[in-house]
Amino acid sequence: MSLQAVEKEIDRLIKELNEEDIIEIISKIPAGKRLRARLMLEIAPNIKETIKGAAIIEMIHAASLLHDDVIDNASMRRGVASINALYGNKSAIMVGDILYSKAFFELVGFKEEIAKIVSNAVVNLSIGEREDVRLSEEFNPNKDRYYKMIYQKTAALIEAASEFAAILANKDREIYKTYGRNLGIAFQMIDDILDIISDSKTLGKPALSDFKEGKTTLPYIYLYEALNKEDKKRLKSLHKKELNSSEQSWILEKFKEFNIINRCKNEALGLINEAIDLMQKAGEKGLESIAIKMVDRSF
Amino acid sequence: MSLQAVEKEIDRLIKELNEEDIIEIISKIPAGKRLRARLMLEIAPNIKETIKGAAIIEMIHAASLLHDDVIDNASMRRGVASINALYGNKSAIMVGDILYSKAFFELVGFKEEIAKIVSNAVVNLSIGEREDVRLSEEFNPNKDRYYKMIYQKTAALIEAASEFAAILANKDREIYKTYGRNLGIAFQMIDDILDIISDSKTLGKPALSDFKEGKTTLPYIYLYEALNKEDKKRLKSLHKKELNSSEQSWILEKFKEFNIINRCKNEALGLINEAIDLMQKAGEKGLESIAIKMVDRSF
Repeated sequence: MSLQAVEKEIDRLIKELNEEDIIEIISKIPAGKRLRARLMLEIAPNIKETIKGAAIIEMIHAASLLHDDVIDNASMRRGVASINALYGNKSAIMVGDILYSKAFFELVGFKEEIAKIVSNAVVNLSIGEREDVRLSEEFNPNKDRYYKMIYQKTAALIEAASEFAAILANKDREIYKTYGRNLGIAFQMIDDILDIISDSKTLGKPALSDFKEGKTTLPYIYLYEALNKEDKKRLKSLHKKELNSSEQSWILEKFKEFNIINRCKNEALGLINEAIDLMQKAGEKGLESIAIKMVDRSF
Repeated sequence: MSLQAVEKEIDRLIKELNEEDIIEIISKIPAGKRLRARLMLEIAPNIKETIKGAAIIEMIHAASLLHDDVIDNASMRRGVASINALYGNKSAIMVGDILYSKAFFELVGFKEEIAKIVSNAVVNLSIGEREDVRLSEEFNPNKDRYYKMIYQKTAALIEAASEFAAILANKDREIYKTYGRNLGIAFQMIDDILDIISDSKTLGKPALSDFKEGKTTLPYIYLYEALNKEDKKRLKSLHKKELNSSEQSWILEKFKEFNIINRCKNEALGLINEAIDLMQKAGEKGLESIAIKMVDRSF
């Protein structure tokens, strides 16, 4: 059983819609890493239902990204033009709805327990996306709200995918839930850190796009806590602004001064290490390696 | 059992989301006539599950309208400001997703057969909304495509609601499916006819908004069939345009000349009468009366 089988299953389900132009649009959605499907294949290999289950989860994930990109006015997704950029916001909304509803239709074929877990994750995911937008409206110094939001927006579906597969494979679901949740939260935290430490091609230094878009990610929350009163004010004044070179440099220096990035990396690593420990104890080499690679590839 | 119980159930389910601002936004969605809930209460009265089922269907309907209004750039809904007008497109998309996913989460508590029927209707509804937009891009002379689109966009969920209730009440589902489907198609046809025969407040004559927005509804399809070659061309040339007074009058005259509106009314009435017949035979006075009122109120 392989990712290829999942891709084929997604194609088969989409073709059942019998709508050529929709099939065409969906074919333009880049597949991405298929993290959720890969986890499920590792947790529940050699089980026929895993293929369909993974296809459903990836369709839900794709639907959520279509709507996210409309909401974020994103023109790119995974290095290529986003669906809203290619076909307009309306098509992206509608195709997202079609993908969601087809996924739910297929989900209903699984037992109630599974359907509840996955649909509950989609409730979380939708609320998380909304909370992400809300938190971007003002400077958010609240770590708990940040954590809850990234759990809902990113980790809930990965957690649900892991639990789904654990149920299919008759494995101890709590272990796999924790693994999926930790990976999901760490994955989002790493993404947020990379926005600060990766050089932008055009600038030659980090663009700090998240902060410009209003997103007060974990490093900014810790930085705010560490700064003195005056600098707190300065940081807040730069929130959601187009930063000039010296403002950017100031933020980056302050991150360095207070060792914020390492602190955030360690927090993400703590979650990943807990996930790795669980998988070591469970003898899950493949899942251990997925977690290790997530860190290696990023930092 | 009453509509009030359904409203309370919707409120209860929304409150479970535990998100105050979302509850606030959803409270601003006008309830409308709750046609789907009323049908379900008539078909399956005195059954506890009907209340929750009707709440789910109305939440799905509300979610679809939130997305429709974004897609149509609608500023009004049921006589008040639409959610996208009040809170912006992003909020309308996200709250729509939250309503959809919460409805699906609750739907999963019903037996698989019911969950399949309803989720399949949502697939249809999403495809129908997309097809409505696509058909508006060019002049559509194809009656079959019009019929299929309004079935998917409007009738599929009403049909599913009726079947859902018939299953709950252990009644002959085919009869109620047909009733719901006919009512749904006729409902949309009547809506499309009203756009042509109802005087706009500001103009003192019909605004023909659908045609201006590109929607070639049934009367336009029949008119196109009836016109001579030259007039066919003229009609097509007016499609999707801001019409001046003489162009509007020309279209209205042509509708009169070929008796198009009566023909369309009769087609809608035929569907309604079939629905009424079925309900008479089944001794369903309440459902008969809903169908009769739908016509009386409109024409």
